[in-house]
Amino acid sequence: MAASPKPRSASVTEMTEYVLPQHATVGGTVFGGQIMAWVDLCAAICAQRHAGMQCVTVFVDDLWFKRPVRVGQVVRLRAEVTAAFRTSMEIDVAVHGEDTITGERWPTVECRMTFVGMGQDSKPAGVPPLLLESDADRAAQAAAEARRRARLAKR
Amino acid sequence: MAASPKPRSASVTEMTEYVLPQHATVGGTVFGGQIMAWVDLCAAICAQRHAGMQCVTVFVDDLWFKRPVRVGQVVRLRAEVTAAFRTSMEIDVAVHGEDTITGERWPTVECRMTFVGMGQDSKPAGVPPLLLESDADRAAQAAAEARRRARLAKR
Amino acid sequence: MAASPKPRSASVTEMTEYVLPQHATVGGTVFGGQIMAWVDLCAAICAQRHAGMQCVTVFVDDLWFKRPVRVGQVVRLRAEVTAAFRTSMEIDVAVHGEDTITGERWPTVECRMTFVGMGQDSKPAGVPPLLLESDADRAAQAAAEARRRARLAKR
Amino acid sequence: MAASPKPRSASVTEMTEYVLPQHATVGGTVFGGQIMAWVDLCAAICAQRHAGMQCVTVFVDDLWFKRPVRVGQVVRLRAEVTAAFRTSMEIDVAVHGEDTITGERWPTVECRMTFVGMGQDSKPAGVPPLLLESDADRAAQAAAEARRRARLAKR
Amino acid sequence: MAASPKPRSASVTEMTEYVLPQHATVGGTVFGGQIMAWVDLCAAICAQRHAGMQCVTVFVDDLWFKRPVRVGQVVRLRAEVTAAFRTSMEIDVAVHGEDTITGERWPTVECRMTFVGMGQDSKPAGVPPLLLESDADRAAQAAAEARRRARLAKR
Amino acid sequence: MAASPKPRSASVTEMTEYVLPQHATVGGTVFGGQIMAWVDLCAAICAQRHAGMQCVTVFVDDLWFKRPVRVGQVVRLRAEVTAAFRTSMEIDVAVHGEDTITGERWPTVECRMTFVGMGQDSKPAGVPPLLLESDADRAAQAAAEARRRARLAKR
Repeated sequence: MAASPKPRSASVTEMTEYVLPQHATVGGTVFGGQIMAWVDLCAAICAQRHAGMQCVTVFVDDLWFKRPVRVGQVVRLRAEVTAAFRTSMEIDVAVHGEDTITGERWPTVECRMTFVGMGQDSKPAGVPPLLLESDADRAAQAAAEARRRARLAKR
Repeated sequence: MAASPKPRSASVTEMTEYVLPQHATVGGTVFGGQIMAWVDLCAAICAQRHAGMQCVTVFVDDLWFKRPVRVGQVVRLRAEVTAAFRTSMEIDVAVHGEDTITGERWPTVECRMTFVGMGQDSKPAGVPPLLLESDADRAAQAAAEARRRARLAKR
Repeated sequence: MAASPKPRSASVTEMTEYVLPQHATVGGTVFGGQIMAWVDLCAAICAQRHAGMQCVTVFVDDLWFKRPVRVGQVVRLRAEVTAAFRTSMEIDVAVHGEDTITGERWPTVECRMTFVGMGQDSKPAGVPPLLLESDADRAAQAAAEARRRARLAKR
Repeated sequence: MAASPKPRSASVTEMTEYVLPQHATVGGTVFGGQIMAWVDLCAAICAQRHAGMQCVTVFVDDLWFKRPVRVGQVVRLRAEVTAAFRTSMEIDVAVHGEDTITGERWPTVECRMTFVGMGQDSKPAGVPPLLLESDADRAAQAAAEARRRARLAKR
Repeated sequence: MAASPKPRSASVTEMTEYVLPQHATVGGTVFGGQIMAWVDLCAAICAQRHAGMQCVTVFVDDLWFKRPVRVGQVVRLRAEVTAAFRTSMEIDVAVHGEDTITGERWPTVECRMTFVGMGQDSKPAGVPPLLLESDADRAAQAAAEARRRARLAKR
Repeated sequence: MAASPKPRSASVTEMTEYVLPQHATVGGTVFGGQIMAWVDLCAAICAQRHAGMQCVTVFVDDLWFKRPVRVGQVVRLRAEVTAAFRTSMEIDVAVHGEDTITGERWPTVECRMTFVGMGQDSKPAGVPPLLLESDADRAAQAAAEARRRARLAKR
């Protein structure tokens, strides 16, 4: 970790999943754990694109299930790096349901996850900072740092 | 929902999963989303045993990943109803890794989830209260009610 | 099918999949059939977004596998409606591999699929035409119609 | 295998599985092979906990399917070491169905499996004997040895 | 069940499965429960082809695991109706491993299963007898009837 | 690749799959991508049996979906080597649906795939020629060579 990695602008990762019977419960809706699994995969790709290294999940903030998605409908996920710390990143994930027949879309889950970058030695490694170009960028990073301090205090 | 359901003592649900290559990432450890999926299934069984009706996930409190579990090791989950409200329940889930060869066990994830009971009409329905027999029981229920108010305030 | 459905501009569907050991062969690369399965799902969502009805796969044009994708890498798919006929649509799907660590991306598969829209009675139903606004649009539709005639002749 | 491993009391392993549509046949009940797969995993964990080494399935005694389990219900498994021989162990597995809504539970499958402990060299290795403290313990081990002789005679 | 179903000659069902990492344990061999799942599916198809109705697994005779099969190799199954009783059938299943690179094949599992035919009312229904044309056919059926009596006595 | 491998007669590979809810779409029929996955696995086994080495999919010719297969029915696949070139093989795959209750069978998909043999160094390696014993054999090989030239010209 001699040289500091160069700042990068926030990467975005989008996933789309077609809900099949294998993802559903007896009631015909995606079970909550399957959505959490997709959220984790989407955020992991997003974190690795930013960090340029293997990343592991360390924290999931409060997570609300708002409205279910049924077999035959579609789950859309959007993950974005909201802040980078020394060896970790905060990733925001928004999940929507979509009915391809009617075109309707609705919020399903929204959450924040924290990933840590892992070096070749399987130890936490320094990740690139986020490029902060405007006052808004700097305010967002500061807000994320406050959330991080609150997480660590709760641990 | 004419008659109030009778109070029940806290039900406990335990699950054990053998980690196979199909649960793992490229690094050979269970991926976070798979653990979240098992947490959701274990807590759902626990909630349904208490409520005696279909239940759906509505909330997952902060969730820490402490130490990974590898292919060939075992994941153990223990869910317990910590409080019952009018139509919802708070479920505590503790997840441990276990190496069956060495006998070692370690904490992997700990989290709280909220489930809502669903009536035959697919609308939230009244669930049985927890049996509160001691001062400790009543204090635990009060603490859970405080956490619930905090969740609703954050929404 | 009394009234003709209104023309629509070409919808695009993108999917991203994290390659896990469960998708791979003994050599550690995604097996061809798994990629074909993702191609079919991505194109099906794209067709249903255009048609606003359930759609079924009827044809896959020549499909080349150019370069493999490994466990731990990412598969990206992009499907686009290239032409609409009376009850069917031609969908173009481009698949790329991506290494999130190095950032490298490469073409993996490119193919064309044909889907048929299914009415409530499970019979082929009229789908909206593509909006043709420029000479280029009209030339693309004409080229697709020539490919369709060639397909039907080969059947 | 210079020193003999120390005797151990019989270990017990319990598993709980939520039946999802992905485990079922067209009729909505778990297919027999899925239950056999869970039986094997549960018994394998139980054998490895006793032996402290990798174990492989070598034999399944007669196995009766008594009453089916449906999607949305729960499968509970309980495996116990009933006897230890030089390099192998007899494991008893009892499987019950449970309806979390009504609270009803019923026997589904009961069977005995034999596992062999594998050393680092992938050859059968000595496993710890069962701790035999009472006359009942010694009678149970003797009965298991008679079953083992009958199995080997049938081979 | 007014008219007796016409006798049928013994149907044979063959399955071939390519072993992928998703079927294996940490050691790279197919786990026993996966093989049992394939055995059940192969025998179920065989039973349904004979009976011409939905069939359910009721019994698995002693089952030996002889030699493992590894990821990248192939599992071949062959099921055959060995006897038909009033509402049930005995099915013999032989499982072999195959290495497609070297061409080597070896016995992995051999077992007998019993299936019961289910009528439209989900109750056991009469299945066609086996066509017995030679003394050998009649001797085979008699041997199967003796095994059936032994099974029922053990229950 | 010093010595030329000895010619081999055309190997045939057959697979049978029981359609479970985990293979189906919301409509209860196998989704197209699942059938393509089985086609790829069946053809890969067939290619490896001929070549005696690891093989990878490089091309899928036009592929028609004729009639669907439903949950509870059976998918039958038959792959055959139709021609061998220097390092590649053309494999013909025919897929049928089967209803085990009625005994009805119907064509579902027919396609041609091309596989390349891979040496120990993960580079294309020489595969055995097909044994051509009759004029019909030689005509079939010539027709396949013409198709191959057409494929390469389209690339």
